[in-house]
Amino acid sequence: MTAPSPSTPQRAVPSAADPCLDRVRAHVRALPESGIVEVMNYGRARGGVIPMWAGEGDLPTPAFISHAAARSLEAGETFYTWQRGLPELRAALARYIARLYGVAEAPERFFVTGSGMQAIQIAFTMALGAGEELLLPSPTWPNAAAAALKIGAVPVPVPFDYGPTGFTFDHDRLERAVTPRTRAIFVNSPANPTGFVASHDDLRAILALARRHGLWIVADEIYGRFHYGEGALAPSFRDVMEDDDHILFVQTFSKNWAMTGWRIGWLEAPPALGQVIENLIQYSTSGVAAFMQRAAIAALEQGEPFVAEQVARAKAGRDLMCAALAATGRVDLVPPAGAFYLFFGVAGEPDVRRLALRLVDEAQVGLAPGTAFGPGGERFLRLCFARGETQLADVAQRLSGWLTARREVP
Amino acid sequence: MTAPSPSTPQRAVPSAADPCLDRVRAHVRALPESGIVEVMNYGRARGGVIPMWAGEGDLPTPAFISHAAARSLEAGETFYTWQRGLPELRAALARYIARLYGVAEAPERFFVTGSGMQAIQIAFTMALGAGEELLLPSPTWPNAAAAALKIGAVPVPVPFDYGPTGFTFDHDRLERAVTPRTRAIFVNSPANPTGFVASHDDLRAILALARRHGLWIVADEIYGRFHYGEGALAPSFRDVMEDDDHILFVQTFSKNWAMTGWRIGWLEAPPALGQVIENLIQYSTSGVAAFMQRAAIAALEQGEPFVAEQVARAKAGRDLMCAALAATGRVDLVPPAGAFYLFFGVAGEPDVRRLALRLVDEAQVGLAPGTAFGPGGERFLRLCFARGETQLADVAQRLSGWLTARREVP
Repeated sequence: MTAPSPSTPQRAVPSAADPCLDRVRAHVRALPESGIVEVMNYGRARGGVIPMWAGEGDLPTPAFISHAAARSLEAGETFYTWQRGLPELRAALARYIARLYGVAEAPERFFVTGSGMQAIQIAFTMALGAGEELLLPSPTWPNAAAAALKIGAVPVPVPFDYGPTGFTFDHDRLERAVTPRTRAIFVNSPANPTGFVASHDDLRAILALARRHGLWIVADEIYGRFHYGEGALAPSFRDVMEDDDHILFVQTFSKNWAMTGWRIGWLEAPPALGQVIENLIQYSTSGVAAFMQRAAIAALEQGEPFVAEQVARAKAGRDLMCAALAATGRVDLVPPAGAFYLFFGVAGEPDVRRLALRLVDEAQVGLAPGTAFGPGGERFLRLCFARGETQLADVAQRLSGWLTARREVP
Repeated sequence: MTAPSPSTPQRAVPSAADPCLDRVRAHVRALPESGIVEVMNYGRARGGVIPMWAGEGDLPTPAFISHAAARSLEAGETFYTWQRGLPELRAALARYIARLYGVAEAPERFFVTGSGMQAIQIAFTMALGAGEELLLPSPTWPNAAAAALKIGAVPVPVPFDYGPTGFTFDHDRLERAVTPRTRAIFVNSPANPTGFVASHDDLRAILALARRHGLWIVADEIYGRFHYGEGALAPSFRDVMEDDDHILFVQTFSKNWAMTGWRIGWLEAPPALGQVIENLIQYSTSGVAAFMQRAAIAALEQGEPFVAEQVARAKAGRDLMCAALAATGRVDLVPPAGAFYLFFGVAGEPDVRRLALRLVDEAQVGLAPGTAFGPGGERFLRLCFARGETQLADVAQRLSGWLTARREVP
């Protein structure tokens, strides 16, 4: 590789006021920067920060999964493949869901996507036109609202109630938020960032709401196995739905199998939508690498011990961090019933975006500011506790030290 | 893994008339099935067919590329990464373009995407609103039009001229196709499926058109190295553009480095668009696996001998297939100046979709019907000749045999 000679003309880097920006469609130009990524980018450029900002654990993908990808690559599985996903993976997904939930599912219901994010984008593209509304219990993971904005739709945040038991649905408020333009409701349970877990009664109420108003439910149950209440699994729409309900399940391999960086997920939908979903995959990314899909099959078929270990580790992490933060006497924190985040307020610290940036510099801990998660999140910080005991103890010490020191210097 | 017991309730597979489809947004429901994929799905279920339908060669990804991915996986690079791409890959892309075209480029101009398809989708999402128009010289690769339809925009096919020298631009017709709603023009050169290569005069004329009307140019020069005319590289907008031109280059690792199945590409754009592009990546797929990007770096930095071999192989394949088909006396074929497709008509066979299906069954050769490529393609078949001599000789024999036999049985 030869570097360009000094006399090579250099293409200029235009300024931020470049007229190019004026020619970008307004709703696209107005998309918000992820408030999580902002802090990540700030902190990644600094050394020594323990990153608890993103929704990912500290374990790399287990070797049995990575090796399945490497073997597939070695075997030359590097050509175009099925747009809906390898038939073997679709069958493995159907078996996985059947095994967990005791409801046999047809492989034709499963569509492999290039991330859970893409599954959401496809679901919204089918359900929402420009100007149409998506109900979004809030605070919530910001990418759901942004994915709706990206296609010109209108996310309508509907705040959770917040009380001594933490966040809860206000079903009357959800009902009142429905307008003639409402087309869908995004239901994330167990929830990111709040740790809220919908009960079966909650799910039945939302199902009734959706039926009454002809809404799609986009069900994000990706943390369904990270459940600290009764039963191994969090309550699921699968437990209460009928065959003709209009539910799109968005899913990912990221959390259960420590595959955040892979970008592979799936959409579960009525098979009648098969051709539409195939087209949307074809015209957005044209499928998922076969060698990634081989790894996904290994995850589903050999991954149970790893998932069990991850869930147990998260539960221990939750208990450790909750105890440490509660001991400072400065936090407002209800232990989460599911997912793997603490979502807590700090007394005397109303500006959490600034607080998150300060914690990077002053405590060397990276947290996500609640402002990134929409209405109702403004006074909270999100901390991912899907980590090992050693790191969590370190984080607990750094945060406790900072919180205590700050208390002593008013 | 336990299979569901026979008494497990089975979720029904709804019929094609499922009311779910009625609740899908109309412009999404109306997206066309890829006419290429239709024949692929038809033929893949049959044995013994030599697949020449897709735009990919027969070589698997070279080991030095796959091994780079495997090494990265082994090293645990399985976490979330930079949404714009690894800084090392963006720098490698800038060096690659500088080396090829002799114009130094800033790494900030390069954005890693989950396929060239995603680069197109992002470019169109920035440039085109609902109801706005995209000029599309036709026939062309169908996914460009479909990507515009997916976001509610209007692809406006503008037919090429066709004569004894093959397909050529009609610049007056392009000018006449501009309306107050036109926002962009998609320029693919060397072109799929026609093999057309735009001259520098063509590119200057399109640039002038775009400047006159304030249009974006979405430049698809992914076959720029598969050029059989004068010069190693096909003419590029880089050769004639100014810094302030509004050009978005969409690119892929698929063709040069035999990575079709990987789904990795890039978008080259003014850095002023950086945050918008990062947001669009974040909210559609949230980035590209770091281990894939390591492979891409290997491709750029060690891939020149492989690219040279691929291009030489394609040129030999072009000559072999052109000679064989011309010898049948039944085809209308101009040898292509670039890319790696023959696009030819068969005398007495006006229904090329049906012809493609018959060739699967009767000649065991899979071709793409020209109907898949829009206006102007209706009487052609596309054959990908990026293959080894043995396979091409086999295909030539099968097609020649079928064409000759058909001539003798009127």
